[in-house]
Amino acid sequence: MQTLVIGLGSMGFGAAVSCVRAGIDTAGFDVNPEALERFQASGGKPIESLAACKDIDCVLVFVVNASQAESVLFDSELQSGLMPNALIINCVTLAPSKAVEIANKVGSMGFRYIDAPVSGGAAKALDGRMSIMASGTPLAMTDAKPIFDAISEHVFELGDEPGQGSQMKLINQLLAGVHIAATAEAMNLAASLDMDLHQVIDVISKCAGSSWMFENRAPHIADGDYSPLSSVNIFVKDLGIVTNEAVENGVVTPLSDAALALYRKASESGLGGEDDSAVVKVLAQQSKVTLPGSDT
Amino acid sequence: MQTLVIGLGSMGFGAAVSCVRAGIDTAGFDVNPEALERFQASGGKPIESLAACKDIDCVLVFVVNASQAESVLFDSELQSGLMPNALIINCVTLAPSKAVEIANKVGSMGFRYIDAPVSGGAAKALDGRMSIMASGTPLAMTDAKPIFDAISEHVFELGDEPGQGSQMKLINQLLAGVHIAATAEAMNLAASLDMDLHQVIDVISKCAGSSWMFENRAPHIADGDYSPLSSVNIFVKDLGIVTNEAVENGVVTPLSDAALALYRKASESGLGGEDDSAVVKVLAQQSKVTLPGSDT
Repeated sequence: MQTLVIGLGSMGFGAAVSCVRAGIDTAGFDVNPEALERFQASGGKPIESLAACKDIDCVLVFVVNASQAESVLFDSELQSGLMPNALIINCVTLAPSKAVEIANKVGSMGFRYIDAPVSGGAAKALDGRMSIMASGTPLAMTDAKPIFDAISEHVFELGDEPGQGSQMKLINQLLAGVHIAATAEAMNLAASLDMDLHQVIDVISKCAGSSWMFENRAPHIADGDYSPLSSVNIFVKDLGIVTNEAVENGVVTPLSDAALALYRKASESGLGGEDDSAVVKVLAQQSKVTLPGSDT
Repeated sequence: MQTLVIGLGSMGFGAAVSCVRAGIDTAGFDVNPEALERFQASGGKPIESLAACKDIDCVLVFVVNASQAESVLFDSELQSGLMPNALIINCVTLAPSKAVEIANKVGSMGFRYIDAPVSGGAAKALDGRMSIMASGTPLAMTDAKPIFDAISEHVFELGDEPGQGSQMKLINQLLAGVHIAATAEAMNLAASLDMDLHQVIDVISKCAGSSWMFENRAPHIADGDYSPLSSVNIFVKDLGIVTNEAVENGVVTPLSDAALALYRKASESGLGGEDDSAVVKVLAQQSKVTLPGSDT
């Protein structure tokens, strides 16, 4: 199976390398030359232009957002390099309605589509242990199995229809985005009370206040290390998708709204490229709290 | 060691029964006669008035809030039934400043104090497996050890000073309260999209959006079962303590504020005595979403 991974960022790179490791013939494309070099150094086959691809059976799309996904799928020379009936596995987080729209357009071009947003972070992606929230026809899912086996630990098969995978990702991002902001709020309050932040992490991780995101992100704040694993701007985008979807359905989301306001404020303050836990800096500034690693 | 547990609600009853099971001579007091009967049926020694207690070495306080704690400690006939130097272990969730105030007053009366809020829920309390966030002098902690061994799985020793235990509980309740509200928000959005709510729980529990509270409370919403394990009104109180403490320290808490508004709205709508996950009913009503178990 000739496979092409488009977008070699933290998740796409991990997926591409996991495919190579599983013995799948894998090409990789990215607009960033450094990403291509890194992929080549890991045994992959970098391509510098989508015009260069040929006889591709399966495309994994790992670009940043819906408009990039539409651009590579519909406004590039990719199509001429695809086999008839090729499988497009779209791993981008996007609105469920957008997943349906893209799936229909892909179908009308004679290709197949799996709606397959992922979760798990860069480290798990590199290990081939991401989680995939997938929806698509049973036959497409069967054909995707070798790829899914290579890149994931859990594949949740959520139905036949495009959009079902994206709906689940939406719910996950709502929770993840709110939990990171809650972690920031809790750590900022603890810092204001002069509590030992590492002790806070040790205790809360064993209590009912814990979350996956608390255990993962609170140490960044306690260590004052905002090297981006996943950036503030990702949640500006993803909670934007969540709240738009909610508004379109007449659904209120007061916590997502409050969290999104924090991510936006952080992004507007120049923190968009920092680790998402850097939303704590917005709270600290508004509260005149000094955090670990801060100069003020 | 003659021990008295004051307040035989879900946590206090579990602690009292766990002491009995550990062979500690344990009396129990509650204003509710049914709680006293239940305690007697479990092998405990119920007392119908604090005036009846005698030669008590150790008091565990499990009443609902700070004013009830002050009432039983300072405005009752309890004092005359305590041994000199008796140990008061206060497990009530209250503001850290209030813990200091009560500790000082207890000290001036010739008794010792441990600030010891707990976490874990009714089921763990019954099993003697709660978590305790404790602060107090090393000697008091040593004397409390047989009691702590009987009722808890984790004892976090957070320092010598009263208030340090309550600070940690504050951070835990901030996170727990926000996470329950986030769970409600996520489940309400999922219901609006006609998603299979049990499938949502299965998937999210294995993804980065999970939290202790999501795993514990989301099933209540999927099952439409709001029998109170911990009630809405508990979080009206506890997030009230969190946001007051924050305001007093000039700290902003936008997520706690949003969550508290939901708990208050639920309480004002007559849901105060239901399970805390019933905040989802406020969101569902505002969003015209039909939840499992609802008639509308």
